[in-house]
Amino acid sequence: MEWPSVEFDNRHPADVADHLENVGPEEQLKILQESPPEEAAEYVVEMERHDREDLLSRLSGTFVADILSEMSPDDAADILDDLDREQRSEIFKHIDRKDAALINDLLKFDPDSAGGVMNTEILVLDRKLTVDQAVSLIRKGAEDIEVPYYAYVVDEYRHLKGVLSLRDLMLARSGTRLQDLLHDQHLIYVAYNEDKEEVAKLIGRYDLLALPVVDLEQRILGIVTVDDVIDIIQEEASEDLQTMVGAGSDETIDSPWQYSVKKRAPWLVMNLFTSAVSAWVVHLFEGTIAQMSVLAVLMPIVANQAGNTGQQSLAVMIRQLALERFDRRKVWSAVLREARIGLLNGIGLSFLVFCAIFMWTDNLTLSLVVGIALGGDMLLGAVAGASIPLVLKEMGRDPAQASSIFLTMLTDSAGFFFFLGMATFIFT
Amino acid sequence: MEWPSVEFDNRHPADVADHLENVGPEEQLKILQESPPEEAAEYVVEMERHDREDLLSRLSGTFVADILSEMSPDDAADILDDLDREQRSEIFKHIDRKDAALINDLLKFDPDSAGGVMNTEILVLDRKLTVDQAVSLIRKGAEDIEVPYYAYVVDEYRHLKGVLSLRDLMLARSGTRLQDLLHDQHLIYVAYNEDKEEVAKLIGRYDLLALPVVDLEQRILGIVTVDDVIDIIQEEASEDLQTMVGAGSDETIDSPWQYSVKKRAPWLVMNLFTSAVSAWVVHLFEGTIAQMSVLAVLMPIVANQAGNTGQQSLAVMIRQLALERFDRRKVWSAVLREARIGLLNGIGLSFLVFCAIFMWTDNLTLSLVVGIALGGDMLLGAVAGASIPLVLKEMGRDPAQASSIFLTMLTDSAGFFFFLGMATFIFT
Repeated sequence: MEWPSVEFDNRHPADVADHLENVGPEEQLKILQESPPEEAAEYVVEMERHDREDLLSRLSGTFVADILSEMSPDDAADILDDLDREQRSEIFKHIDRKDAALINDLLKFDPDSAGGVMNTEILVLDRKLTVDQAVSLIRKGAEDIEVPYYAYVVDEYRHLKGVLSLRDLMLARSGTRLQDLLHDQHLIYVAYNEDKEEVAKLIGRYDLLALPVVDLEQRILGIVTVDDVIDIIQEEASEDLQTMVGAGSDETIDSPWQYSVKKRAPWLVMNLFTSAVSAWVVHLFEGTIAQMSVLAVLMPIVANQAGNTGQQSLAVMIRQLALERFDRRKVWSAVLREARIGLLNGIGLSFLVFCAIFMWTDNLTLSLVVGIALGGDMLLGAVAGASIPLVLKEMGRDPAQASSIFLTMLTDSAGFFFFLGMATFIFT
Repeated sequence: MEWPSVEFDNRHPADVADHLENVGPEEQLKILQESPPEEAAEYVVEMERHDREDLLSRLSGTFVADILSEMSPDDAADILDDLDREQRSEIFKHIDRKDAALINDLLKFDPDSAGGVMNTEILVLDRKLTVDQAVSLIRKGAEDIEVPYYAYVVDEYRHLKGVLSLRDLMLARSGTRLQDLLHDQHLIYVAYNEDKEEVAKLIGRYDLLALPVVDLEQRILGIVTVDDVIDIIQEEASEDLQTMVGAGSDETIDSPWQYSVKKRAPWLVMNLFTSAVSAWVVHLFEGTIAQMSVLAVLMPIVANQAGNTGQQSLAVMIRQLALERFDRRKVWSAVLREARIGLLNGIGLSFLVFCAIFMWTDNLTLSLVVGIALGGDMLLGAVAGASIPLVLKEMGRDPAQASSIFLTMLTDSAGFFFFLGMATFIFT
């Protein structure tokens, strides 16, 4: 498939960054050295993390410092955050003191908080200014501001008082004071320590282009912009899907394969322990299986059906936690909803399985045992799938992490226990 | 957990919509009737789909028409798209002809295309206008424009020639013609039939606030805005995670539970068939299991490890397809990367399992059989997990749909076949 109907600029920094990721070290160096520093900075910002680390490790501290100085301080801080300590302090030696102070301030924020993702190059206007004073300030200063659609109105202590769009300013009469344009405004803002995922939810919920970030005294520190929020949402979606099954949260097909091996191996080892639990349950009933090997044939059906049912509930619950503000009562009562769905589908599927096995084996009791074990395990799967992310969340952990592995352990071992246990009770 | 450091406006339409979803029919009606129609329209737009359908089905055609007339035509079209035919034509009778024509035009676009998600209330300016003429036009007309940050510059045939931000206009000299401000612009736009997912990728990649949508002659039709893109990205993430395991693409914990039962049941039935394949493989070796019941004990370990390895590859590949433009060479060569990871983790885990089983059973041959079957199945799992979404995509299907179910069938049946086959060959 091509992208036939899309036109884009091949010289856009995002495209040059792609090109840089795919060429050798000498070519990379050549492109960066031949570009004006402010453009080189944009290319580096757009590069994929692992490729960027590789590249920067090959450049001199002075050259990296020149590039970082051209970036907005939040981008520079993000990049420095990925480097190791020695490399970072080597680079800091060559950055001028004012820029270094700004970057250092930003490095203090938790990278997963609003402060860690905010942009500090914003338009701040005193509330006592008139509209025409504001416009002439903007005309003078707007070049440097990354997102010049909003201006933030503050009092003399930099307390956030309101937000005006450039359009508000264009439509207002020139002598009006900014504070008089703010009446009836319902300001939405976050504290610097708010989780970035919550920031993304707020911006998505209220369709904002930028959300102000304040300190504990409500002084404005910066803004989180919608383009950063898109990146946050995509990162969180990758994280949920990938950590659910024990892959690395930030893996992509561009990550070095050794990195992926290292990230996934511990969860595979954990999966070995959980599988051992299921195997142990089967071991309890080895005698029965020796007498009735057909039980081993039917085991995968019970395990798979319940596992799949549970994964359906798990998927819906993980997306719920990703999309909406955590509402304890609402999400726990959704477990009941999943139980209902699991029960109804459990009854339906059990009946199908009962019929199929009865036709195949002509053994009514065995068919009943499989049907009942399957129905029970599907109900358990649905409840477990819906509950696991909630339990992890209540424990203060990532609700997705390894959830699929825990779920499989529960549905496998409970399914084998119901099924083989009933068979043992009835047939031996 | 609470949201302690966030301040928001309880009267924001998104919040009122939440409230509406949680009250009874009379209260809903009361709130809507007591609100000015333009506010009622905003509440309805923000409501969750199923709740909105319920609500609208209880209102008279005239009342719904009044509300829809206050919305932007793209929102009205989206809502009408969800309703059944009779209800739709009943409502259309009461919408005035000009609005109805606009909405009807939008309904013609595929809802999953750029045209289906675009906003048509945009600021279009002739390229021959001067900056001050443009500004005074904006001052007159801006009230009605939903996203007034960009103006689209066109020629006399409405061909898109360039984009100017309000800030560009504010900074330009007043006598300049708009066309002279466009030099050196690299315009990014899409055709109306482009997939909305690709639109979202473009806006994310190039950090745009809005992307112009054109017809086949490059005349501007509308724009897709970044807030709609956030919704598209979230929908796609839910779709991938949920359809992967056979849950409905648009299910949430707010959907009626009967709807979820209906969406999930067919995939559970399909899962029954794929499990039957695995069961059939086990059935082939029933004789061996009857002689050596320990094989049934070890089956879940082989199946789970390979299944988990495959799911890790599957997760990374599905996210790749969600994040980046489809690049056939790149994604297929990523299968090789996953094979490498699967092989290395396969060797490591096989060795661990070999040691554990040897310690437990003191049976060297059996331990070797399990180890080799496990390693082989993990490699196969990784290759299958990475390939399944690509094969589905090449077939023109949704790359996520039921992929986890297909994967489990492959790793289970191949794992049982390797393991029980080798055991049969060696021990009987």
